[in-house]
Amino acid sequence: MNDLLLRAARMEPIERAPVWFMRQAGRYLPEYRAIRAQHSFLDMVRTPELAAEVTIQPVDLMDVDAAIIFSDILVVPEAMGMNLVFEEGEGPRFPDPIRLYTQIKSLTDKDITSKLSYVTDAIKLTKEKLKGRVPLIGFSGAPWTLFAYMVEGQGSKDFRYAKQMLYTRKEDAHLLLRKISDAVAQYLIAQIEAGADVVQIFDTWAGVLTPEDFIEFSLGYLIEIVQLVKQHTKRKAPIILFCKGANHSLSEIAMSGCDVIGLDWTIDISEVKALLGDSVALQGNLDPSILYTTPEVIEEKVRAIAKRMGGPQGHIFNLGHGITPDVDPENARAFVRAAKNAYGRAEQA
Amino acid sequence: MNDLLLRAARMEPIERAPVWFMRQAGRYLPEYRAIRAQHSFLDMVRTPELAAEVTIQPVDLMDVDAAIIFSDILVVPEAMGMNLVFEEGEGPRFPDPIRLYTQIKSLTDKDITSKLSYVTDAIKLTKEKLKGRVPLIGFSGAPWTLFAYMVEGQGSKDFRYAKQMLYTRKEDAHLLLRKISDAVAQYLIAQIEAGADVVQIFDTWAGVLTPEDFIEFSLGYLIEIVQLVKQHTKRKAPIILFCKGANHSLSEIAMSGCDVIGLDWTIDISEVKALLGDSVALQGNLDPSILYTTPEVIEEKVRAIAKRMGGPQGHIFNLGHGITPDVDPENARAFVRAAKNAYGRAEQA
Repeated sequence: MNDLLLRAARMEPIERAPVWFMRQAGRYLPEYRAIRAQHSFLDMVRTPELAAEVTIQPVDLMDVDAAIIFSDILVVPEAMGMNLVFEEGEGPRFPDPIRLYTQIKSLTDKDITSKLSYVTDAIKLTKEKLKGRVPLIGFSGAPWTLFAYMVEGQGSKDFRYAKQMLYTRKEDAHLLLRKISDAVAQYLIAQIEAGADVVQIFDTWAGVLTPEDFIEFSLGYLIEIVQLVKQHTKRKAPIILFCKGANHSLSEIAMSGCDVIGLDWTIDISEVKALLGDSVALQGNLDPSILYTTPEVIEEKVRAIAKRMGGPQGHIFNLGHGITPDVDPENARAFVRAAKNAYGRAEQA
Repeated sequence: MNDLLLRAARMEPIERAPVWFMRQAGRYLPEYRAIRAQHSFLDMVRTPELAAEVTIQPVDLMDVDAAIIFSDILVVPEAMGMNLVFEEGEGPRFPDPIRLYTQIKSLTDKDITSKLSYVTDAIKLTKEKLKGRVPLIGFSGAPWTLFAYMVEGQGSKDFRYAKQMLYTRKEDAHLLLRKISDAVAQYLIAQIEAGADVVQIFDTWAGVLTPEDFIEFSLGYLIEIVQLVKQHTKRKAPIILFCKGANHSLSEIAMSGCDVIGLDWTIDISEVKALLGDSVALQGNLDPSILYTTPEVIEEKVRAIAKRMGGPQGHIFNLGHGITPDVDPENARAFVRAAKNAYGRAEQA
C-alpha cells in the first residue's frame, strides 16, 4: 500500500509529501457528473456501490495518495432525527431548524451508527475495491459546524440564530453540542472500525467565532472527541482536525491530541511550523482559487509552500478548502503533479 | 466639540473610550428606512441634503461619538468610469466587470474629486449641521477591495476572476491597483479638505488573500495612500485602516503610518495590544452578531473587551463589521451605552 499519508500523519520519515484534496470526489470531474446525472446526491451518499465508485474516481483519475469516502457532513444531524432536504440547484437545508429546548431534547444520539450503516458499508466496499492502493479517509463535521447548520437550517452570513443560542441560552447550546459530540464520536469510531485508515473532522465555521468562544463551543468538544476516538480504536487511525479560520488558536488545537492540523491559506505554513515544531503534522495550505490559474502558476505556488515548510516530513499537501466545481480537471492534475514533485525531483513516473 | 475620537486616535489621554459603529447610518433604523422608502440608495448618496440627514441620524438617535458620512465604497469605481447598478432587493453590481487590459486603460483616475463633489458637498453640509457636536469620519474602500468588486462585478465567494488576474496577469493587476490607489488618495484628501476630521479605509476583502499576497496586492498600496494623504493634508486627520480578516499582518499594518487599526472579532484585543504597544490606537472588536442578543449580554461582552484592553487610552469601541439590518435599535443603543460605561462608571447621563 501507498502509506505515505499514514507515515506523514505520524511524523515518520517520508520520501515525498502525500497529496489529496478536499471534495476531490466531486462536481469538477466529468466522470462524477455522469453518475450524478442519473442519481440524486443523497441517493449517491446512501448507496454504497455509488459512493464507493465516486470515492475511487480521483484515485484513478487524479493519482492522489488517498481516497476520502464520498458523503456529507449533514448525515449526522439527519441520523439524529432532523429532516434533511437537498433540492436540485440549491444547497442542503433543514426545513425545521433547531431553536427550542424541546427540539433539542427530541434529537437522539442513540443508534447513530446503525442509522449511518450505509456510510460504514460504503467504507467497507471502498476498502475492498481499493485493494490497498491508497489509504481511505473517513470524516465528520465538527460539533460547532453541525450545530450552526442545525440551528440556522442552512448556511448563513452571520449565524444569527446559532449565536443567539450560544449567548442567550448557553445551557441549551451546550446540551445540543454535547449530543452532537456524542453522535460524532460514535460515528468516527464506527468509520475506523469499518476500515477508515484516517479520519478528518471538518470545522468549516470555526472562523466565525471569537477565539474565546471557539475554545468554549468548538475546541472543547473536539478534544473530547479526539480522546474518545483514540481510546476506543486503540489509536489505530490518525486524526486530522481542520478548523477553518481558527488560526488564532493553533497551539490549542495542536494540544488536542490530534495527529494532523489542516490549514487554510491565510497563514504562512513556516510560521505554523515554527510555532508547533514536530508536535503535529500539517495539511494544506494552497488557496483553492489557484486552481483557476495555469499549471505553471500552480507549480510555482505549490513550490512556495514546500519551500516555507522546509521538508516533506509531517506535510500533507492539500488545498485550504474544498475544490470548486468550475475547476478544470487538468489544473487539479497539475496540482497533484506539482505537490508530488515539490520537495525535489519526481519519485514516480 | 466632543473630540474623544480624535484624542483616542492620537493616543492622547481620554476619560472614556469613544464609540461609533460601522453602517450606523443604515437600514436597522426606522428613521433611515422612512427616508429610504422615498429615494433610491444612489439618490441618497448623491444628494448632499439627504446624505447629511441620514449621516446625522445616529448622532441624534444613538448618541454615538462620531458621524460617518453616508456613502458607498463603489462610488470610486463609478467615478473612474464604471457603470454602477443598484437594483432593489439586490446588492450593487457592475454589469461590465473589468477583465481586459483595454478596460483597465479606459478607466480614469483624473478628475475623481470633481466627479465625487457630491460627497465632499455632503461632508461640508454635514459639518455645518453637526455644529461641532462630534467629529465626522470620511471613508473609502481599499484598492484591493475595490479591485475585487471591479473585476468580479459583484460580491463573490471565491473571487475567482480577481485572483486569476493577480496570479496570471500580475502586471495588469498592478496597473489597475495603481490607478485605483491614485483615485483613492485624491478622494481621501478631498474629503479631509472638505472637513472630514478622520478617514477610514475599508479593506473588507483583505482576508481572502494569503499573507504574502495581502502585502503585495493590498498593504503596499495602503501604505502609499497613507503617506500621500498625510503629506497633502499636513497630517491633519487621523487615518483608520480596517483590513478585515488580515490579523496575520497586524505588525505590518501598524507600520503603515496609520493612526488606528480596525479589528474584527476573531482576535483577542489584549494580544494585539501586547503585540503593538502604544504605536497605534485600536478600534473594535465586538462581534456584530452580539447585537442579536439582549442588552445584558451586550454589556457583558463589551466589558470583556474593555477588560482585555486594560484601559480606554487608544481604544475606540466599534463592531468588528457593519451592523446588520435586522438588529433592534434598542440593542444598538445598549451597545453604545455599554461602551460608554465599559471602563468604569458613566461619565455622562
